Amino acid sequence: MSDAETSIEQLKALVLAFSKERDWEQFHHPKDLGVALASEVGELLDHFRYKTNDQIRAELGQGATHRAVSHELADCLWVILRLADVCRVDLASALAEKVELAALKYPVDQSFGRADKYTTYRPTDPGPSID
Amino acid sequence: MSDAETSIEQLKALVLAFSKERDWEQFHHPKDLGVALASEVGELLDHFRYKTNDQIRAELGQGATHRAVSHELADCLWVILRLADVCRVDLASALAEKVELAALKYPVDQSFGRADKYTTYRPTDPGPSID
Amino acid sequence: MSDAETSIEQLKALVLAFSKERDWEQFHHPKDLGVALASEVGELLDHFRYKTNDQIRAELGQGATHRAVSHELADCLWVILRLADVCRVDLASALAEKVELAALKYPVDQSFGRADKYTTYRPTDPGPSID
Amino acid sequence: MSDAETSIEQLKALVLAFSKERDWEQFHHPKDLGVALASEVGELLDHFRYKTNDQIRAELGQGATHRAVSHELADCLWVILRLADVCRVDLASALAEKVELAALKYPVDQSFGRADKYTTYRPTDPGPSID
Repeated sequence: MSDAETSIEQLKALVLAFSKERDWEQFHHPKDLGVALASEVGELLDHFRYKTNDQIRAELGQGATHRAVSHELADCLWVILRLADVCRVDLASALAEKVELAALKYPVDQSFGRADKYTTYRPTDPGPSID
Repeated sequence: MSDAETSIEQLKALVLAFSKERDWEQFHHPKDLGVALASEVGELLDHFRYKTNDQIRAELGQGATHRAVSHELADCLWVILRLADVCRVDLASALAEKVELAALKYPVDQSFGRADKYTTYRPTDPGPSID
Repeated sequence: MSDAETSIEQLKALVLAFSKERDWEQFHHPKDLGVALASEVGELLDHFRYKTNDQIRAELGQGATHRAVSHELADCLWVILRLADVCRVDLASALAEKVELAALKYPVDQSFGRADKYTTYRPTDPGPSID
Repeated sequence: MSDAETSIEQLKALVLAFSKERDWEQFHHPKDLGVALASEVGELLDHFRYKTNDQIRAELGQGATHRAVSHELADCLWVILRLADVCRVDLASALAEKVELAALKYPVDQSFGRADKYTTYRPTDPGPSID
């Protein structure tokens, strides 16, 4: 499997099959998956704490750290796929929609090279609410 | 775009293009993206707090909540795609590997219908470390 | 030390001394402490995932789980105390202020027995912004 | 109220009274409070994302940001106090215990000026398990 050849649906099916085999769907309430997601994100962030950006980059160049971070990211994605499944969310279309809305919030000419929130330079949001 | 027809690579490309257009790649250090991910997960979880599983299910059946939760999930996925990009992680293969390792940790016959950690029933982990 | 006899300032001093002794203040930027906090919260939440409220209550009645959860809570508090220190925040007065503002947002007669957000029943927030 | 004069118990009582007045204790299961904590931490971290340490320091020198961050920290503490209450945890003694255990893990002579985990330089943990 590779990112180039694998659809979101295939990944959703992969982790659903894992749950079905173990009769784990009964535990996958949105709130519990949300708790699981916060846990997995915490494990991912643990790789970054108290390190400078340069240190993190250097460590990611080492096989062991790269593999560990890959697995943490995979764990986060796993939970998101299960959440999307139980909440009946099509992730690709939701992301495409979100990107479109974000483009309205962050017009290129105003947001170019700026990391601050759109509210800084667009105090009144003219577009549709996208939270 | 739909989950059935969209590859992970296409989604990675979509959010990368958004950043490139705005010259935002300079801000996308792993630690900062990690901070962003924790923020987005917090927004997602805000939809679940102090609600029972039944209430959450009922609210997800309403268009407005369903759309809001879809957008929060899309935001989380967005950050994970950027993180995978800057950390040079192939998400599909990392997830496939993680699922294989999890299958070793949670053999079907021992984990069937049980939500507890494998460490409860397998105090000594025989398999490779997968954190 | 006990909650009845220990001030916030004493706890701030305790964890500051620990950092000073190890020359760790140099690492305690707000962002890094924020990352650490998300990690610690993730570890705490790991005790709750995929468990019902009844299971969690029962497990908290056991010494080992109670002690483990106590330690996770202590870790979260530890990071908050360091954050308050480096951000020069008086936690007691900030909390007192926040409670006062929350009382405006959630008048007893309107919020009694309701878990939903004040925005549900007070679409226009009349009080000062409190994030 | 100030950190110098306020005990943890007083703060616990303050937020408990707020809940009691609104009959909100019924919603305060550990899992739900955990979800709330992750949400509040997400809001706090939102102040730090995509900003350098210098930018964050500068912004904290401004009244508005300092007040906003104070409130986010107060929100996090609020939830921790409620969690400690419902989990029957004495935070001061748990923290004192945790600091003692951390001192065993991070002896001053080995950890001085180092941000990495004790596992880097002490592959075998000799002390008691402290999660």
